[in-house]
Amino acid sequence: MPDTLPADSVGLVSPETLHFDQPIALACGQTLDSYDLVVETYGTLNSDASNAVLICHALSGHHHAAGYHAMDERKPGWWDSCIGPGKPIDTNRFFVVSVNNLGGCHGSTGPASTNPATGKPYGPDFPVITVTDWVESQARLADRLGIEQWAAVVGGSLGGMQALQWSLSYPDRVRHAVVIASTPKLSAQNIAFNEVARQAITSDREFHEGRYYDFNAIPRRGLMLARMVGHITYLSDASMGEKFGRELRDEAYQFGFGAEFQVESYLRYQGERFSESFDANTYLLMTRALDYFDPAWETNGDLAKALAPAKCEYLVLSFSTDWRFSPERSEEMVNAMISARKKVSYAEIDAPWGHDAFLIPTPRYTDVFTAYLDRVAREVGA
Amino acid sequence: MPDTLPADSVGLVSPETLHFDQPIALACGQTLDSYDLVVETYGTLNSDASNAVLICHALSGHHHAAGYHAMDERKPGWWDSCIGPGKPIDTNRFFVVSVNNLGGCHGSTGPASTNPATGKPYGPDFPVITVTDWVESQARLADRLGIEQWAAVVGGSLGGMQALQWSLSYPDRVRHAVVIASTPKLSAQNIAFNEVARQAITSDREFHEGRYYDFNAIPRRGLMLARMVGHITYLSDASMGEKFGRELRDEAYQFGFGAEFQVESYLRYQGERFSESFDANTYLLMTRALDYFDPAWETNGDLAKALAPAKCEYLVLSFSTDWRFSPERSEEMVNAMISARKKVSYAEIDAPWGHDAFLIPTPRYTDVFTAYLDRVAREVGA
Repeated sequence: MPDTLPADSVGLVSPETLHFDQPIALACGQTLDSYDLVVETYGTLNSDASNAVLICHALSGHHHAAGYHAMDERKPGWWDSCIGPGKPIDTNRFFVVSVNNLGGCHGSTGPASTNPATGKPYGPDFPVITVTDWVESQARLADRLGIEQWAAVVGGSLGGMQALQWSLSYPDRVRHAVVIASTPKLSAQNIAFNEVARQAITSDREFHEGRYYDFNAIPRRGLMLARMVGHITYLSDASMGEKFGRELRDEAYQFGFGAEFQVESYLRYQGERFSESFDANTYLLMTRALDYFDPAWETNGDLAKALAPAKCEYLVLSFSTDWRFSPERSEEMVNAMISARKKVSYAEIDAPWGHDAFLIPTPRYTDVFTAYLDRVAREVGA
Repeated sequence: MPDTLPADSVGLVSPETLHFDQPIALACGQTLDSYDLVVETYGTLNSDASNAVLICHALSGHHHAAGYHAMDERKPGWWDSCIGPGKPIDTNRFFVVSVNNLGGCHGSTGPASTNPATGKPYGPDFPVITVTDWVESQARLADRLGIEQWAAVVGGSLGGMQALQWSLSYPDRVRHAVVIASTPKLSAQNIAFNEVARQAITSDREFHEGRYYDFNAIPRRGLMLARMVGHITYLSDASMGEKFGRELRDEAYQFGFGAEFQVESYLRYQGERFSESFDANTYLLMTRALDYFDPAWETNGDLAKALAPAKCEYLVLSFSTDWRFSPERSEEMVNAMISARKKVSYAEIDAPWGHDAFLIPTPRYTDVFTAYLDRVAREVGA
């Protein structure tokens, strides 16, 4: 066990569970009467509550974004590279709030939680949640924490969709929206990959139509396949090539179907590990939230028109080798923001790691991110 | 039932099964004592047998490349767009041979065939076959047909690998090798997608470790998933967007996990149809042949050195939006051919359909393909 944690870490952190009793009406038409949200916070809220930053997580993320839960935790939170003292989201200046989304599987109410109506896990009866619903639940979280306006709402990928939606659902409650490696809506190819993941899960014999909890079962193989497909799309062809190439585990071909290439055993390992820690119904729900997100739906595809209500400033970042949500998808967003006469800063960051690049600090990414949030901090006197 | 078939069709064709009794030693170390190959031929072999063209098929292909098996057949052979009177591979001039590869599931000996040693289907006991093995079996087919030298060996994707391998295994028996939408070896990403497909199949509870025939079972869900993943990689993001966009089957979101988007129902349909007609063990075997292909393996990655024995001329074609085997992969091949002082013609064809573009006639593709094979025909006096 190390004696010390890195100096630029937020250090030891503890999640907190907040209970909400006011019913929340969801986009699907259903209502959740009450729910829990698990949050972590880093830094200190200033006296006028103007320095709060909300972190929105992506498909497989959760509230543990920075720091360590224990001295012997193997890895820090998932975005520790960007959150901490002196880091782009500087916890010496900002009060950072990180929440596990509704429907998640890390403590917030989700499909694995007990349905008060039945006394059993919700399973497939848990409502399908949308990005708009998340923003609604996050607004109640802000109320609870006494935050009238976020200095910034920040997210990558699916998290970026939440940041964008915040600017539309609550224009007065967001000063800045930081939308990283994201898209204003999924393409047919994006939906297709999600559909493969869902089919893998729902066709696993251990899925039991989503009631696997009642059977003391887990659709491990389906989750593993879903994660394997997802993982391929998070990396670039080049970065997989760099990392694994065609390297074999043994010296020669085995002429069988075992994991012979390094990339095969890596994917199997990633898939297996994921299947032990993630809830299958949550995976379905998160992918559907991705599919459904389309703020321009109600304006007949006119994103600039959909953006009209927004009052915040935007920072949009994309990564050159991200083929899941390519720079072109960010540019669609930026072009619509410009058409809608919004303030927007945009950078395409040159990085070889595909979609995963938003989790990996590189000089230009860190510089742009830091400079922008420094300006935000100055604005709010932090 | 139509009265006539298109004028540029080879018309009604019948496959023929050829039995081979001479044992074939395979790359994996095993030997097949005897085997069948199913072939179709189109056109007429000339008196000096100089006008023969071999068609090599890809992952899910077979011997039925052109024409119709019956007047009411819904669709012609898989490469009918390129094979026929007046088409790029002109059956008025060439004698075209199309074979279902060893290990296939359309009549040639494969995992579903009866293992003479047990009287039961081979299943997982069928040897893993490589591209080199296919070339060897095709050479015996050539012997049987009295073809000493192919005017051209032609193939797309995995078929292109066979064309390339022919030029190395039998330099004196190939005048021209036409390598379309192919690659000199799979990338880590390519292997990763194959691995997902294999895991989907082998983790299907109906797979029974490859002995599903004995259980009167078919790993349908696994095959369906494998095909869905494959299908996404055959199309470009743009062509999927063009074809499906985000179109819904109903007017609004259903807030569930059914096939709501057109692209979802298309993929499910394609996957289901495929799972009814293709053998799972063959799918495993074909993907492994793809993974293993690497002619530069024995020359420490030096492809130009590996190409040294070749005596043929090459035509290499790639397609601008093919991200499975991108133009860069063809260019690797072309650069090595140039370094090795081989004669090579290369064109990157602008086409929006991704990898599938090699099956779709477009003016420039057809022009280049036709012009090249016209020259081949003239050379051999056809």
